[in-house]
Amino acid sequence: MKSRTAYLTFNTPTRHAFINITPQVRKIVEESGVREGMVLVNAMHISASVFINDDESGLHQDFEKWLEKLAPYLPEGYLHNRTGEDNADAHLKRQIMGREVVVAITAGKLDFGPWEQIFYGEFDGQRSKRVLVKVIGE
Amino acid sequence: MKSRTAYLTFNTPTRHAFINITPQVRKIVEESGVREGMVLVNAMHISASVFINDDESGLHQDFEKWLEKLAPYLPEGYLHNRTGEDNADAHLKRQIMGREVVVAITAGKLDFGPWEQIFYGEFDGQRSKRVLVKVIGE
Amino acid sequence: MKSRTAYLTFNTPTRHAFINITPQVRKIVEESGVREGMVLVNAMHISASVFINDDESGLHQDFEKWLEKLAPYLPEGYLHNRTGEDNADAHLKRQIMGREVVVAITAGKLDFGPWEQIFYGEFDGQRSKRVLVKVIGE
Repeated sequence: MKSRTAYLTFNTPTRHAFINITPQVRKIVEESGVREGMVLVNAMHISASVFINDDESGLHQDFEKWLEKLAPYLPEGYLHNRTGEDNADAHLKRQIMGREVVVAITAGKLDFGPWEQIFYGEFDGQRSKRVLVKVIGE
Repeated sequence: MKSRTAYLTFNTPTRHAFINITPQVRKIVEESGVREGMVLVNAMHISASVFINDDESGLHQDFEKWLEKLAPYLPEGYLHNRTGEDNADAHLKRQIMGREVVVAITAGKLDFGPWEQIFYGEFDGQRSKRVLVKVIGE
Repeated sequence: MKSRTAYLTFNTPTRHAFINITPQVRKIVEESGVREGMVLVNAMHISASVFINDDESGLHQDFEKWLEKLAPYLPEGYLHNRTGEDNADAHLKRQIMGREVVVAITAGKLDFGPWEQIFYGEFDGQRSKRVLVKVIGE
């Protein structure tokens, strides 16, 4: 079995951001030499997500508005924020968007449908945060 | 390490559908010869889901009603729909229901609890769409 | 390829509970002898979750209140409950919180960010239910 581990670092200038990380993941998979296997891509921070959806800016604005409705930013509205944080909403938003994706590797490539793209979803940015990419296979 | 890759194709007559795909996944796992490992099952389209829950028609109607409340179909209500699509709601519904499941394979079988069943969740059907099944293990 | 399979059993005294299962998962990973690989941790019951988030009691209360708002307990409010159950809400809550997590194993350890902890989320407890831990790698 082969494996490869890599870490991507993000420090977004805005509190929220969606960043297409497909090229970086693709490169790590190619460098791994794995022909048949799986790659795990996960946020290492609990106020951020990794998810697969469409690379369309209108949809990203729809996600933003929708998440704000389902899990609004309320500095005084959550018990978690009594710890001195104001990011309880980010922990909730991340549950909807998910922590991780697992993608099949077939014949050395990400085995993707026509529109699948991997995104880093930041809900409490403006500081350095990491994403883990783990490839296993043969 | 052994691996096996298969694709299932669906073209649902209705816009929304929940289809139990456990028998197909079980067959692919058996054909793989893998005794200990994992199987990844994911929607290859970004307006569809793969998830594990109960095979009970009342619950499926509850899911349908609930998803419509959390992420309603609104042809004019999303920026994504300005691209000529009317399926922004399907991209949101899929985030709640999830893109993929990973299931353990133990002693050659899906290692499932008593009620676990794998479903394909379609939120923008009436066209051909695929599900990926990837088995790895030994 | 090495693998290891273990089952954790929970019988929570309350209907809802969040239990930090990181120590148990860590022990199973160490016993597996896997240095590079992945561990799958999933609820084997469809009214429970496994997820990764913060071990902070205020946040857990926020999750509880938020899930009750998004998917309220309504014994008469769901078609699923006509089957004699009253737990349709638990099946919905579990979709938001997720069935499973996959965690990378690097140099023999869970490859975690600073605050990541694995939780069992119970939404219909007071009976014996299981979590599956599957380690694969080398």
